[in-house]
Amino acid sequence: MAVETVASATDSPEAAETVDLGPATALSCRECSARFPLGPNFVCLECFGPLEVAYNLPSGDPEGLRKQIEAGPNNIWRYAPLLPVPADVATKPNLEPGFTKLIKADRLAAELGVTGGLWVKDDSGNPTHSFKDRVVAIAVEAARAFGFTTLSCSSTGNLAGAVGAAAVRAGLKSCVFIPHDLEPAKIITAAVYGGELVGIEGNYDDVNRFCSELIGDPAGEGWGFTNINLRPYYGEGSKTLAYEICEQLGWRLPDNLIIPIGSGSQLTKIDKGLQELIKLGLVEDKPYKIYGAQAKGCDPVSAAYKAGHDAIRPVKPDTIAKSIAIGNPADGPYVIDIARRTGGAVEDVTDPEIVDAIKLLARTEGVFAETAGGTTFAVLRKLLEAGVIDPAEETVAINTGDGLKTLDGLSDSTGLSATIRPTLDSFREAGLV
Amino acid sequence: MAVETVASATDSPEAAETVDLGPATALSCRECSARFPLGPNFVCLECFGPLEVAYNLPSGDPEGLRKQIEAGPNNIWRYAPLLPVPADVATKPNLEPGFTKLIKADRLAAELGVTGGLWVKDDSGNPTHSFKDRVVAIAVEAARAFGFTTLSCSSTGNLAGAVGAAAVRAGLKSCVFIPHDLEPAKIITAAVYGGELVGIEGNYDDVNRFCSELIGDPAGEGWGFTNINLRPYYGEGSKTLAYEICEQLGWRLPDNLIIPIGSGSQLTKIDKGLQELIKLGLVEDKPYKIYGAQAKGCDPVSAAYKAGHDAIRPVKPDTIAKSIAIGNPADGPYVIDIARRTGGAVEDVTDPEIVDAIKLLARTEGVFAETAGGTTFAVLRKLLEAGVIDPAEETVAINTGDGLKTLDGLSDSTGLSATIRPTLDSFREAGLV
Ligand SMILES: [Zn+2]
Ligand SMILES: [Zn+2]
Repeated sequence: MAVETVASATDSPEAAETVDLGPATALSCRECSARFPLGPNFVCLECFGPLEVAYNLPSGDPEGLRKQIEAGPNNIWRYAPLLPVPADVATKPNLEPGFTKLIKADRLAAELGVTGGLWVKDDSGNPTHSFKDRVVAIAVEAARAFGFTTLSCSSTGNLAGAVGAAAVRAGLKSCVFIPHDLEPAKIITAAVYGGELVGIEGNYDDVNRFCSELIGDPAGEGWGFTNINLRPYYGEGSKTLAYEICEQLGWRLPDNLIIPIGSGSQLTKIDKGLQELIKLGLVEDKPYKIYGAQAKGCDPVSAAYKAGHDAIRPVKPDTIAKSIAIGNPADGPYVIDIARRTGGAVEDVTDPEIVDAIKLLARTEGVFAETAGGTTFAVLRKLLEAGVIDPAEETVAINTGDGLKTLDGLSDSTGLSATIRPTLDSFREAGLV
Repeated sequence: MAVETVASATDSPEAAETVDLGPATALSCRECSARFPLGPNFVCLECFGPLEVAYNLPSGDPEGLRKQIEAGPNNIWRYAPLLPVPADVATKPNLEPGFTKLIKADRLAAELGVTGGLWVKDDSGNPTHSFKDRVVAIAVEAARAFGFTTLSCSSTGNLAGAVGAAAVRAGLKSCVFIPHDLEPAKIITAAVYGGELVGIEGNYDDVNRFCSELIGDPAGEGWGFTNINLRPYYGEGSKTLAYEICEQLGWRLPDNLIIPIGSGSQLTKIDKGLQELIKLGLVEDKPYKIYGAQAKGCDPVSAAYKAGHDAIRPVKPDTIAKSIAIGNPADGPYVIDIARRTGGAVEDVTDPEIVDAIKLLARTEGVFAETAGGTTFAVLRKLLEAGVIDPAEETVAINTGDGLKTLDGLSDSTGLSATIRPTLDSFREAGLV
């Protein structure tokens, strides 16, 4: 029987029976529904499908659960009863990510002609300024539960810093692998936390392949890779975006959500989170539509969606939106399913459209988005202009990280209004007022 | 009589009588105590001393006031009854800064030998990732009250972005003046919000001198300069750091506070905030000591303090801690007063000590501080080593902004642990595990 095979194959220092991850009960295959005990596994032994976390969620008293959540801390741990974490998670040292601002974007709405309400979920407010702090925080709890002592990952940027910082606060060692030729700013931002930062001579695919080898090797024993062997737990962190958006709206669903697509995991987990809120009675059931956003320079999901395909054809990324430039997105087919099921869509935008959207959001709402966030807002604009999104409906768009991290995309088009001598005459000549 | 002279000299579109800035009742001279009506003025007409805001604060029911504050929003507006802002300030569009994390820094404490409790007040969590969002938010309310339509400032970095973003959210125009040769990253970060950004051929002193001229000129009519003609209001924003620290400690005073010194305004206003909390009965009165932190490359206050002088001798700054590199700090004498009165001190540290402290804080607590924050923690370490700060006492140190903004200081000393080929053999040879 599959379950026993996996349990005995688990190298984790702790037996599955002693693992306390709160309401999480098992890993379940997304393809064939086979169940496996909680452990550092990510692929179904039956069909090689991806594993995800199955729960025994606290049903029956939605009003009580809402009150419990509202009385919780101002971070993702207010949702501990819905996450694969122990009940006392908030008392352990951690970065306390989440509960970022949901901003009513009235000026942006006016500019785009949205009349039904427009909101920016601004995840640049997280400790290392991207949504990665959410997913890494859950991976840290899984690492603790499985007795891992080193937190690791493959990364091209945001994740490296999030893992380095989270490991420090949790008292874990860290060893992060990146392509050796990353920009100096990204290397500093990841290295400053003092863990090991290893440059791999190769591209991101080479880094990933190396990490997968390391997991099976004695050198990688006791290591939790957030986005590989802890991936099923890690991914659950994105559900908190769904919880927060609905709670911050006053415990209700919006009509439309626009979400950037890298691997596609964030979008699928936000949908999972919304479904849980409905099932638990925390929000009233009503239709919602999910829209996925890609950069044209890395648009495998958008291309498949538009062609009516179910399978994703991998691409070689070439876009300024580097944090979502994943050429072969693992959750791409699930994203397409969700877009179709909810009546949403998947759309892509060019790099100049992304830069324009970053500047639009900054000059209307004072929010400086990273290029992935620019992608979201460029897709929002494109879908409104195309009549795909109804401006009379209520829409939430996600900014996944901070523009400070992706300045390169802006350097050609953003600068001084004028350069003057320090005199009033020189100022008047500039003609600014 | 002085008051009437000033009232009639005020060019503001609204008469002083109609200005609603909540509990603020007047401007009061820090030197001669002359009082003037609330308006866009910053220098005493009697003695040229600096003006500060005088209040009629809500005394008599500390328990009720504590409850009111705790029921308020998770930003600085929870303290609206103690700030120069209208009572309904939280309902107006603004960036909602503040209520940033107070982090129990147990690992850093262990490393430094602190046994009495050590806390990091982490202001990198603000919307544009520095404490400037606090002070600008108050300046915006003053600008609104005086009928100004353009928000302006002289800046070398952090303030420019904070003003640009705040103006956008508040629906004000903005025009920010900076030295024309600022680093490209700082220019992008300030320009992205779409306001006017004017480069001045000259240094920061030239920029300031130009702005002061502009205030008296028709071209500057209707303009609020956050750090010039709105300075008395702007400065009050730093009081919220004192309020938050004490509330987050459970409504009590710490023994020691370490605060970086630029102009010195932040330190003096934190002291003012602590005194208010005591007077209002919100915290129990007890001794506290305030320590000021400077970079050796810009140490006019530290030098005067150590020499036993009251007056500050201006210096030409040369340090990586650019956001506090003010050679002629306006509030320097008040800082020295406060350090002496409370039994604290003023200390300075070298640039290498600042970089070391940034890395120490990052590898012990996962907090990436800007160079001004590094200055604070380097001074903390130095004062502990010198036996000036008692390790058995409770200490709070302030990180005023995010390390992402000051990467330059780290590029020489922070990088990859190793570069390897994507093979297990190459990894083992690197000798990291
Ligand atoms: Zn399966
Ligand atoms: Zn005076």
